[in-house]
Amino acid sequence: MADSIGRTREEAAARDAADPLRDLAAQFVYSGDGLIYLDGNSLGRAPRVALVALRQAAEEEWAHGLIRSWPTWLDLPRQVGDEIGAAFLGARPGEVLVTDTTTVNLYRLLVAALDARPGRSVLVTDDGNFPTDRYLVEGLAHQRGLTVRRVPTDLDGGPDLDSLARAVDVDTAVVTLSHVAYRSGAVLDLAQVTELAHQAGALVVWDLSHSAGAVPVDLAAAGADLAAGCTYKHLCGGPGSPAYLYVRSDLQGQLTSPIWGWFGTRDLFAMGPRYEPAPDVRRFLGGSPPILALRCLQAAVRLLAGTGIAPLHAKATALGEFALDCAQAGLSQYGVALASPRAPADRGAQLTLRHPRAAQLVRELATAGVIADYREPERIRLGLSAATTRFTDVWDGLDRLRVLLAG
Amino acid sequence: MADSIGRTREEAAARDAADPLRDLAAQFVYSGDGLIYLDGNSLGRAPRVALVALRQAAEEEWAHGLIRSWPTWLDLPRQVGDEIGAAFLGARPGEVLVTDTTTVNLYRLLVAALDARPGRSVLVTDDGNFPTDRYLVEGLAHQRGLTVRRVPTDLDGGPDLDSLARAVDVDTAVVTLSHVAYRSGAVLDLAQVTELAHQAGALVVWDLSHSAGAVPVDLAAAGADLAAGCTYKHLCGGPGSPAYLYVRSDLQGQLTSPIWGWFGTRDLFAMGPRYEPAPDVRRFLGGSPPILALRCLQAAVRLLAGTGIAPLHAKATALGEFALDCAQAGLSQYGVALASPRAPADRGAQLTLRHPRAAQLVRELATAGVIADYREPERIRLGLSAATTRFTDVWDGLDRLRVLLAG
Repeated sequence: MADSIGRTREEAAARDAADPLRDLAAQFVYSGDGLIYLDGNSLGRAPRVALVALRQAAEEEWAHGLIRSWPTWLDLPRQVGDEIGAAFLGARPGEVLVTDTTTVNLYRLLVAALDARPGRSVLVTDDGNFPTDRYLVEGLAHQRGLTVRRVPTDLDGGPDLDSLARAVDVDTAVVTLSHVAYRSGAVLDLAQVTELAHQAGALVVWDLSHSAGAVPVDLAAAGADLAAGCTYKHLCGGPGSPAYLYVRSDLQGQLTSPIWGWFGTRDLFAMGPRYEPAPDVRRFLGGSPPILALRCLQAAVRLLAGTGIAPLHAKATALGEFALDCAQAGLSQYGVALASPRAPADRGAQLTLRHPRAAQLVRELATAGVIADYREPERIRLGLSAATTRFTDVWDGLDRLRVLLAG
Repeated sequence: MADSIGRTREEAAARDAADPLRDLAAQFVYSGDGLIYLDGNSLGRAPRVALVALRQAAEEEWAHGLIRSWPTWLDLPRQVGDEIGAAFLGARPGEVLVTDTTTVNLYRLLVAALDARPGRSVLVTDDGNFPTDRYLVEGLAHQRGLTVRRVPTDLDGGPDLDSLARAVDVDTAVVTLSHVAYRSGAVLDLAQVTELAHQAGALVVWDLSHSAGAVPVDLAAAGADLAAGCTYKHLCGGPGSPAYLYVRSDLQGQLTSPIWGWFGTRDLFAMGPRYEPAPDVRRFLGGSPPILALRCLQAAVRLLAGTGIAPLHAKATALGEFALDCAQAGLSQYGVALASPRAPADRGAQLTLRHPRAAQLVRELATAGVIADYREPERIRLGLSAATTRFTDVWDGLDRLRVLLAG
């Protein structure tokens, strides 16, 4: 049929029924209003266990335990960091902290990396990097009189690798890139880019916001230096849940956070006259950790870690292929084009489509009960959360988009 | 009686029965274990409305609303900031944000202030300032090749004002002090110190962590420049709840945060090629706000604002006088000395006692069901939270301390 989107809804329903992650999906909250939610890469759905953990942390640990709970709270940034690191980052114990926001963590890591490469005057990033990443780089260059080399980006892919190779040289202190591009979902090769930077003697700061919980990440295998990312997308920590940062073990003693906070000292309660940084990753802590949010996130991470990244990635890949088939069969005739890499291995857990009326279509989709994201320019970004997106969600969402386009 | 602490428990109970804040106190959670909690200046008790708000934010706004809740979330840092500012800081609308931690906020403000005073090479603080404040200053001096002048502190009071006056001169870029000292509870005169700094052309960054919700603060009347503070003490926002920062209106356009984050831009979703700071206080935002914690804090702040700072301060003052009477009558014979200013107007909502075995006594008190704080050197810090501390808590706590000392 001319008005079909290629696959049938029955096929989508059959895929859902056979989904090996069906039990995981049942652990999340779904509103009763039939919402088609294709935006889990903006804000992940709520795991029931996370809501329970949040409530327990507030009503038991805070309200009843009061400061008697601090012994169990004190190491939460490192504990939850280790849990994320082991399950989703390929990090070793003691390399990851959950603390602050991605913005603050990237700032800390960028400054620490710049300080570790004195005499080098260049920061490298790409035009398509997430705004906060680009702005942080711009700010640091402004404050320190450094130069930014912005590698051109294929808006439907990632940064141009030849340009990147040319941009990184003996003057380069730091390269900072997103592992998975927020707009197109394009995946960079962690090891390849890290190696490229290391050959020039530069450090790499990775933004893993769209990676953790969506695609396999092996920081240890890649020899990665530094990384940060958010937890409210594929890790389902809740709106504004705290971010993580990663510092490779052997770098921890050499790097210094610019923000000398009391939680980053060797002995928190000594409160001594001089700042003595912790010998390990904790030196990148600042102030009091957000305990309630950490408990909520911890429960979400444990739930997802129980499934593991391989099945999650396989499901996201299958959703992506299904979505691409539907879009090609049913939407291309209306001028909708793919704005993500075509090969599944080159994409994160999302599919981005391009259309001149994308902004308006995303608004109309919302009215029709389908939540997607609009991204400049002319992009409809469909989040395909392995844990919670159903094949029928994809079918319904794209079919409603077809109806809007046909109308 | 030789073993009395001067006042009777009956008198304490009568004071509780006549307490005009009794209805407010009933709005908080108390554990059933008879705990005597004299540590609300470390972590405030949980208001029931805050627990409800947290649960609603998680279970309704996040789990059901998902990203559809962002329109109501987006301005929360400023909304809750305005609520705190109006009720507890003497700030005008648009001058306060709730965001990040006190450590990160002080860092932002200190750097912004230093950048606004180019050519001046001195940072002034005091030896008794809270560790994170001192460490931040030390770190910035180290990073920028500046000089720190640390004014001597009376451990039982505050910074020496004559020394402060001598330390602040035409080379001084920034003065940073705590309004209420964390150790002794000594209160500085906001207007007097601000004026002293302004006469030398310096900016002042105030730490209000022990002030907001405990003592009257009028930043506008004092002509204050910049301030930050935490919300988990007297504002009862929960463990690690987000901090606030204050930037006086006319300074906002002149000052720049060192951390150029996407939430600090003029148009968050434009995601443009260059960083354009918001024209107002929002330029001090960084990454995604901690939504669940903001809702929890907002409910706590509204509850306390409904009472207002004058009755809260009056109650804290009465508790302090009662505690001081008990300590003088019943504990001085055992070598316990006052380590806070004697005049009620010179103290925050705490009373600090000094004893050579303070550390051990605080541990023994905990075993005896009384929570107080140990602070170096040899201090027992008693938090007197206006909203939740009862006169009988003070009597019971000090009587148990007397028993420990007599034993």
